[in-house]
Amino acid sequence: MEDNFTQTPVMDEPWERIRAALELGDTELIRQLLEEIGTTETSLVLSRLNEYEQGLLMTLLQPSEAASIIEEVHEAQAADIIESLAPEHAAAIVDEMQSDVQADLLSEMKKDSADAILEEMPPSEAEETRAMLSYPPDSAGGLMITEYLAYRQGATVSEVRSDLREKGDIYSDYPVKYIYVVDDGGRLTGVAWMKDLVFSPAHTLLERIMISTPKRVRENCDLDELREFFRENRFYGVPVTDNDEVLIGVVLSEAVEKALEKKAVKQFLWFSGIVGGEEFRSMPLIKRSGRRLSWLTINIVLNIMAASVIAFYQDTLEAVIALAIFLPMISDMSGCSGNQAIAVSMRELTLGLIRPVELARVLRKELALGVINGLALGTLLGVLALLWKGNPWLGIVVGGALMVNTIVAVSIGGMLPLALKRLRMDPALVASPLLTTVTDMCGFFFVLGFASLMLNRL
Amino acid sequence: MEDNFTQTPVMDEPWERIRAALELGDTELIRQLLEEIGTTETSLVLSRLNEYEQGLLMTLLQPSEAASIIEEVHEAQAADIIESLAPEHAAAIVDEMQSDVQADLLSEMKKDSADAILEEMPPSEAEETRAMLSYPPDSAGGLMITEYLAYRQGATVSEVRSDLREKGDIYSDYPVKYIYVVDDGGRLTGVAWMKDLVFSPAHTLLERIMISTPKRVRENCDLDELREFFRENRFYGVPVTDNDEVLIGVVLSEAVEKALEKKAVKQFLWFSGIVGGEEFRSMPLIKRSGRRLSWLTINIVLNIMAASVIAFYQDTLEAVIALAIFLPMISDMSGCSGNQAIAVSMRELTLGLIRPVELARVLRKELALGVINGLALGTLLGVLALLWKGNPWLGIVVGGALMVNTIVAVSIGGMLPLALKRLRMDPALVASPLLTTVTDMCGFFFVLGFASLMLNRL
Repeated sequence: MEDNFTQTPVMDEPWERIRAALELGDTELIRQLLEEIGTTETSLVLSRLNEYEQGLLMTLLQPSEAASIIEEVHEAQAADIIESLAPEHAAAIVDEMQSDVQADLLSEMKKDSADAILEEMPPSEAEETRAMLSYPPDSAGGLMITEYLAYRQGATVSEVRSDLREKGDIYSDYPVKYIYVVDDGGRLTGVAWMKDLVFSPAHTLLERIMISTPKRVRENCDLDELREFFRENRFYGVPVTDNDEVLIGVVLSEAVEKALEKKAVKQFLWFSGIVGGEEFRSMPLIKRSGRRLSWLTINIVLNIMAASVIAFYQDTLEAVIALAIFLPMISDMSGCSGNQAIAVSMRELTLGLIRPVELARVLRKELALGVINGLALGTLLGVLALLWKGNPWLGIVVGGALMVNTIVAVSIGGMLPLALKRLRMDPALVASPLLTTVTDMCGFFFVLGFASLMLNRL
Repeated sequence: MEDNFTQTPVMDEPWERIRAALELGDTELIRQLLEEIGTTETSLVLSRLNEYEQGLLMTLLQPSEAASIIEEVHEAQAADIIESLAPEHAAAIVDEMQSDVQADLLSEMKKDSADAILEEMPPSEAEETRAMLSYPPDSAGGLMITEYLAYRQGATVSEVRSDLREKGDIYSDYPVKYIYVVDDGGRLTGVAWMKDLVFSPAHTLLERIMISTPKRVRENCDLDELREFFRENRFYGVPVTDNDEVLIGVVLSEAVEKALEKKAVKQFLWFSGIVGGEEFRSMPLIKRSGRRLSWLTINIVLNIMAASVIAFYQDTLEAVIALAIFLPMISDMSGCSGNQAIAVSMRELTLGLIRPVELARVLRKELALGVINGLALGTLLGVLALLWKGNPWLGIVVGGALMVNTIVAVSIGGMLPLALKRLRMDPALVASPLLTTVTDMCGFFFVLGFASLMLNRL
């Protein structure tokens, strides 16, 4: 028990200590505290400081120090922090980052804020970053980095060596250790290995040791194509060229994996009704509440549509009140069955196991499954209804409705992502709410419709 | 219109052409067709062949050719195909792959099948792969590759150069181009760059040009720690050591990103009720149906628990039949609100923005949001009920119930992932069904309970 008393009552949390150091303006103490915190807790600590404190921290530190802290936290959080700084401070920090990180960060911000920061950056670098921002984020152009080694094919091994020696400090941060070879027009003509520089005599021309016409991707190559490329070729990075074969960047395999993870996370968030981007509890209450409500209001409208079916059959319901107990169950169970089919279709689409036109194949496969699962679940629910009320007709109505609606749900659920894809809509956002509205309406209709046909037996 | 008639009626799909070539046993034709198909369609084509045809394809080709096809498809699909081959064929193909791919593939199979394949592999390689399989899949040991360059620190630059020259063919497949330096006990002591080999005189000892005590991770380092490591250090790979500091492998940053994507996909699948691993429609119907049913049967039990609340209040419902219309809406809306809070907590946990013990912080944040959203949604639904039936008391009952239940849903939803994490359970699997069962029960109780209190006014 005594331990509870000997513990220091305040200042035990790292953000409280940082806060105190910020109040003192003691930069050395802040550095020391950040060092102690270590990377795993950086996100946590930053998220517990308010906007003013975050800004103070970023401006008290050197831009390079601030940049390395920012690189440790999640992009959405990083963008929030940087966005709240004065543009000149923000630009100094962003300037310290690698080109793809810059582009990621700026693309998370409001356009105005990103533009203000770009205005304050050195013109040449700003232009490079603007160019990257002009590509769709999940294309080769949007994912590439511009830190790579390229030499003219007429250069000799010794010229390359001396350049490497001279600018070694800059290059040591470059993630790609291949040497790309270009012609006088900047067009990609080859790639050479560092080890070939080791073994070749000094006067050898690069074009003699390079691998000619290396694999490359176009700037507009999309994420699925990049995934396929790296699945086939276990490279670290692939050079990116524009329409004239001019080398403009390198996409790292790592960047593709990261983009795929981001996409999967977005899918998960959308499926859970978090649709306006990441939400952290350090964000202002009004922003969090507003974003969630925007989704919930759509959902309540969809629910009212579904409920109107029940209202239509109010007389039937009044005659057999027991049905009311089964309505939420039918709605929930059919939603689950349908969502399973949606998930399978979305995965098959992502992995290229199905083409968006193959609706008939999906329908065939899901119908077969729907009949089995519908029979199983319908029988289960029907028997339960019979046991509860002792009326076999109630069992037939309720079990039959669940059976038929399971078939409807898996068929629609399976085909919906393909249909949405053909309409160029993202299934992750639309498929599930659309499905549950339809299956709710159908489910309520089957239960109450079947019941009204057998009203005298129930 | 004429085009429809001039088109070849059969053999227009690539898998039909492959199938025909398989029947002829014409290996050259198969090679040519596979070449034509290209990587993006490989998965699709393989998935449309039956198990016998897939096996035939794998055995007609050389093991190295079969391996490169297998590496193009998704792991779950690849494991299915390899698993159905005779172990000696399977082993010959697996033997052609990189160590981490082997481990990934074998870990997707049933233990028996994986063991049978390992039995047929060269003992030394099988042992290496078995060692990798013994690590948790998302730990440094499970994610590492064993293809890396390591030399004793007493070696000279010229010795390393001649080894590189000699075994250049083998090493050219190695993804890591750093050179790791170990002492006589195999303990990691340094890392050297390829470029340092270029610039150093032939007789220089490795230990003179290496960076001493490089960053490393332990074999049991988990995925979150690895992510943090690569967030802080923009390396391609990090050396992995055992408890005695002996170098045992290298984890590539790319492998970590891939594991994170896999985790996000698994979360998405679990949230959608696909719980037994990936489902593809090329799998046997009975397996697909059984896996989906296993989840749906749990769900129906949970639904029955929730519905029992309605059964308990049957008299109230009989008196005010209009309430039946609102029950599924309250259930669905509260489920949505709760799932939003679950998703935010899961993301905050993943990103390290919250500790599992901080239940009070989440409760405070979600209560505030719940009051706002509950008021908004409750008022909306209450006014609609009033307009529909002209009875303000119905509006108060229904709107009040939604308001209170929204607060309950977001509070429970927010805290549940933290509580489950503390119990060492995976929130992705349990949180959502647990939440909806509780919010259904509470929602039905609030609507029908409030109504029974005001029964004479409704």
